[in-house]
Amino acid sequence: SSSDSSSQVKPEADKKQAGYETLVITSEDHITKIMLNRPAKKNALTTQMYREIMLALEAASKDDSTITVFTGNGDYYSSGNDLTNFTDIPPGGIEEKAKNSAILLRDFVGCFIDFPKPLVAVVNGPAVGISVTILGLFDLVYASDRATFHTPFSHLGQTPEGCSSYTFPKIMGPAKAVEMLIFGKKLTAGEACAQGLVTEVFPDSTFQKEVWTRLKAYSELPQNAMHISKQIIRNHEKEKLHAVNAEESSILQERWLSDECMNAVMDFLSRKAKL
Amino acid sequence: SSSDSSSQVKPEADKKQAGYETLVITSEDHITKIMLNRPAKKNALTTQMYREIMLALEAASKDDSTITVFTGNGDYYSSGNDLTNFTDIPPGGIEEKAKNSAILLRDFVGCFIDFPKPLVAVVNGPAVGISVTILGLFDLVYASDRATFHTPFSHLGQTPEGCSSYTFPKIMGPAKAVEMLIFGKKLTAGEACAQGLVTEVFPDSTFQKEVWTRLKAYSELPQNAMHISKQIIRNHEKEKLHAVNAEESSILQERWLSDECMNAVMDFLSRKAKL
Amino acid sequence: SSSDSSSQVKPEADKKQAGYETLVITSEDHITKIMLNRPAKKNALTTQMYREIMLALEAASKDDSTITVFTGNGDYYSSGNDLTNFTDIPPGGIEEKAKNSAILLRDFVGCFIDFPKPLVAVVNGPAVGISVTILGLFDLVYASDRATFHTPFSHLGQTPEGCSSYTFPKIMGPAKAVEMLIFGKKLTAGEACAQGLVTEVFPDSTFQKEVWTRLKAYSELPQNAMHISKQIIRNHEKEKLHAVNAEESSILQERWLSDECMNAVMDFLSRKAKL
Repeated sequence: SSSDSSSQVKPEADKKQAGYETLVITSEDHITKIMLNRPAKKNALTTQMYREIMLALEAASKDDSTITVFTGNGDYYSSGNDLTNFTDIPPGGIEEKAKNSAILLRDFVGCFIDFPKPLVAVVNGPAVGISVTILGLFDLVYASDRATFHTPFSHLGQTPEGCSSYTFPKIMGPAKAVEMLIFGKKLTAGEACAQGLVTEVFPDSTFQKEVWTRLKAYSELPQNAMHISKQIIRNHEKEKLHAVNAEESSILQERWLSDECMNAVMDFLSRKAKL
Repeated sequence: SSSDSSSQVKPEADKKQAGYETLVITSEDHITKIMLNRPAKKNALTTQMYREIMLALEAASKDDSTITVFTGNGDYYSSGNDLTNFTDIPPGGIEEKAKNSAILLRDFVGCFIDFPKPLVAVVNGPAVGISVTILGLFDLVYASDRATFHTPFSHLGQTPEGCSSYTFPKIMGPAKAVEMLIFGKKLTAGEACAQGLVTEVFPDSTFQKEVWTRLKAYSELPQNAMHISKQIIRNHEKEKLHAVNAEESSILQERWLSDECMNAVMDFLSRKAKL
Repeated sequence: SSSDSSSQVKPEADKKQAGYETLVITSEDHITKIMLNRPAKKNALTTQMYREIMLALEAASKDDSTITVFTGNGDYYSSGNDLTNFTDIPPGGIEEKAKNSAILLRDFVGCFIDFPKPLVAVVNGPAVGISVTILGLFDLVYASDRATFHTPFSHLGQTPEGCSSYTFPKIMGPAKAVEMLIFGKKLTAGEACAQGLVTEVFPDSTFQKEVWTRLKAYSELPQNAMHISKQIIRNHEKEKLHAVNAEESSILQERWLSDECMNAVMDFLSRKAKL
């Protein structure tokens, strides 16, 4: 709110939408903001968070907002998949776990592919894994100069998701995309911007102020024109994106059951436990 | 002409092709140059100009030139659609106006999609709207450092044309393309070059000299090889481009009849009238 | 080998694979290296070399290596097609020559399209013609700052191959791709990197050391994950790439029989002979 009168200021909590445990969702100035809210865990994505994000996107697609913004609370944007997801095995065993995880992944990414309004990432800090790969499905990506972009799939015996096997080579060419997606090269914000993954980089000290001023101005433009433009741009490849998403998810389902992947994930978790 | 002998110099007028009111068209050195010639109106594109450009492209495709060049007379490359086009309503009313305009737009852009020879834009100054969006259909884009690239569609309640909803995300990635096409961000020549929309930027003081020296050298290369190369490169997506063009034009036909668009255009014209 | 003990060091020759006259092929550290070995001819590609490279790729696809690397011996990466290929006319005359050459070209490029492991170019010096165009089919391209990238097809009355008519516009946008592919603009390593054709540029003095250190580290990552990732990324467009390759090869078959092309090649060879 732009008011300085304390009597008119609603407490921030009143703008928050109830019903989410892992997200803070606020709507004002024609902007719906979805904030990942597990700062103590670097906003690592749990199964619950996947489901809450899907609900939040469904709601945002139908509310009266013009644009929808993702950001992270705390130092990180998101450290990617919470690898403890791998250790919670259902009665059906690891085959059922892998199958359920692949379905969840496909449905989650599908929500981003189909989202009908301009989708903005405000990348406040390091981004890892699926929080990076789905950026190819966003319409604007603003990054703090503290942000980094890291997809260490091969290190964990895994393969790309979030349609990145298609969107990244298209955005930056295979010679840049492969070093990220296959060899796990971590990009700085400046590198990610030069390669087209990021729209613009801002100094961290002024990041929030500059980005939200700009987004507020953008959100006041004619709404229908913007929503239709977004849909024209994405409809050209929506069918292709869904096919890519299904293929990537299906390949990961097999990967998760491979010795190579299991050993790499166990190594990672045991190294982390020793720290 | 490279001759210094005044007795051999033909007056410039002799090289000009007759029959065009809004363009100046000249052919020499295997180059056909189509110059937008409404400098007092910043080369804003009227309905007449659309038709003359289509005729000029048809003629250039059949003449003995090797390459075809677009440029603007005066300070501007082109300020885009002349919005007074909107105020000239035929007897059939605004529905007929919108329908005719969509057909004209689709046919106009179709001429660029199908043009069989290398097509060069010499962007001498600011470019706006459709003069920017069709640059994705050009083969070389040289820009003066005075040039800017601006597509304020949402501001006018409108949506992208010229196949830009397809070509711009392909050229620069969605994170850069959307800020231009949906949020109307104006690019400098340097930014447009970094993002692949522009081939090279030149200082304005030497722009004409450097560009025409280079184009003259290029125009002397084997003609058939160049024409066939152009066609190989574009044929890969010609069908897709025509489909995109048809869809963009059809969506604009609806947009033009919407209250959102009419109000935005009327606001713009009345603000302009007050200046 | 990392051993300093002279008694354990195998002579370099022992790692070399036998049976190749124009290539030196070595395998260690999970890397198979294919080195073009006609340094006195700037690694110009003869018909024999095309065939040996196809055999080497076939072998590398089946060996136990993780990644496959191309590089050149001496000052050049490769000066492209050896134009003396044009002067070796079979009994069937130039029509048969053109037909055979087009089949060889198509099969050669097809091997790169189908190669199942990460493919790396270590571009040690100038690259010309087909050694440049097939870079769009590589997964990493590291370049010395001595490298340049040059495709003077039109100058020789010819048209693009190696799928470059499709991959280059996709990687760098048509405005940059056309200046290379149609007008023969030579890029520096820095320009090629800015335009996404090259992954990273290194100072020539430290090029080999930096690149091989990095590649050795990459080659130790989980192998199956990397091979599957490579295949996901390329399978999205494998069918399209084979169609483009067939079309480019077929058009070149006609080109090679044209007066325009024959005259341009003869001019080039006679100018070269006079030097």
